[in-house]
Amino acid sequence: MVVERKMTKKFLEDAYAGESQAHMRYLIFADVAEKEGFPNIAKLFRAIAFAELVHAKNHYQALGNIKDTPSNLQVAIDGETFEVEEMYPVYKATAELQGEKEAVRSTHYALEAEKIHAELYREAKELAEQKKDLEIKKVYICPVCGYTVIDEAPEYCPVCGASREKFVVFE
Amino acid sequence: MVVERKMTKKFLEDAYAGESQAHMRYLIFADVAEKEGFPNIAKLFRAIAFAELVHAKNHYQALGNIKDTPSNLQVAIDGETFEVEEMYPVYKATAELQGEKEAVRSTHYALEAEKIHAELYREAKELAEQKKDLEIKKVYICPVCGYTVIDEAPEYCPVCGASREKFVVFE
Ligand SMILES: [Fe+2]
Ligand SMILES: [Fe+2]
Ligand SMILES: [Fe+2]
Ligand SMILES: [Fe+2]
Ligand SMILES: [Fe+2]
Ligand SMILES: [Fe+2]
Repeated sequence: MVVERKMTKKFLEDAYAGESQAHMRYLIFADVAEKEGFPNIAKLFRAIAFAELVHAKNHYQALGNIKDTPSNLQVAIDGETFEVEEMYPVYKATAELQGEKEAVRSTHYALEAEKIHAELYREAKELAEQKKDLEIKKVYICPVCGYTVIDEAPEYCPVCGASREKFVVFE
Repeated sequence: MVVERKMTKKFLEDAYAGESQAHMRYLIFADVAEKEGFPNIAKLFRAIAFAELVHAKNHYQALGNIKDTPSNLQVAIDGETFEVEEMYPVYKATAELQGEKEAVRSTHYALEAEKIHAELYREAKELAEQKKDLEIKKVYICPVCGYTVIDEAPEYCPVCGASREKFVVFE
């Protein structure tokens, strides 16, 4: 059921990466189309973004990468930890060295959020291993920097300064 | 305002790819958590998926890749055309050569949908260039294969055979 041969595996990994980036682009382009007064083109972008999610999921499934929740949380922890300890510190230092202010900002915002993500996923994994769910009601995300906080949004985002009413809530 | 130096540019492109794939993984893991009886862990995955979207969007913006709708549609057309004419034919042929049935299926499903996506984006671009919106009411997506159809879902998906009531509607 799961792909074994190396070339097919490599191609499915590349296809997963490509589908994920297409999905993301279309969600970004949908917001632009909406703002520019093309609501139906925005709808098309969002619908096709979902089709790309279906493709990405099919490839990911064929690769045998969809496991149970504790294992999925470990994949999440490993990804966030790599970003916090290696990837974003290098990217941010490079942007500083090269005087690229926009990139300093976008990598700094990501780095700060990933630290919180790693911690939240660690808590979730401990509970999931005991078959327990997280005890949370709401998750708030800052739409400017991705800052993530449980149950109550701060008056101002501690990372980028965005005000409370801008936060997006998941409940 | 837009990143100029090559190393910073390369790193932002890699960060965009990484964030897009993390976003996708977390949406997939959220569905698993939901099914396994962890609704709050599912909520955390979905919220953090949105935080990764914010990061991807910030990097994409810093790269100067967010333009107006006709230009965004051209990027979409180019991506879909590459997938239809080069990428998926090669990936599918490789999966067939190597007898990897799951990968034959997931690449076949994607290839068929991308043909439709390229066509729909072409129509949208022609209209957007004349400042006109698409005249559509609904977009239906097959959640098994990503087949995409305007305004009415078929009784059975012509690509994978899924029945009409499974289709996801964007309206
Ligand atoms: Fe796709
Ligand atoms: Fe993260
Ligand atoms: Fe923020
Ligand atoms: Fe991120
Ligand atoms: Fe597509
Ligand atoms: Fe289908």
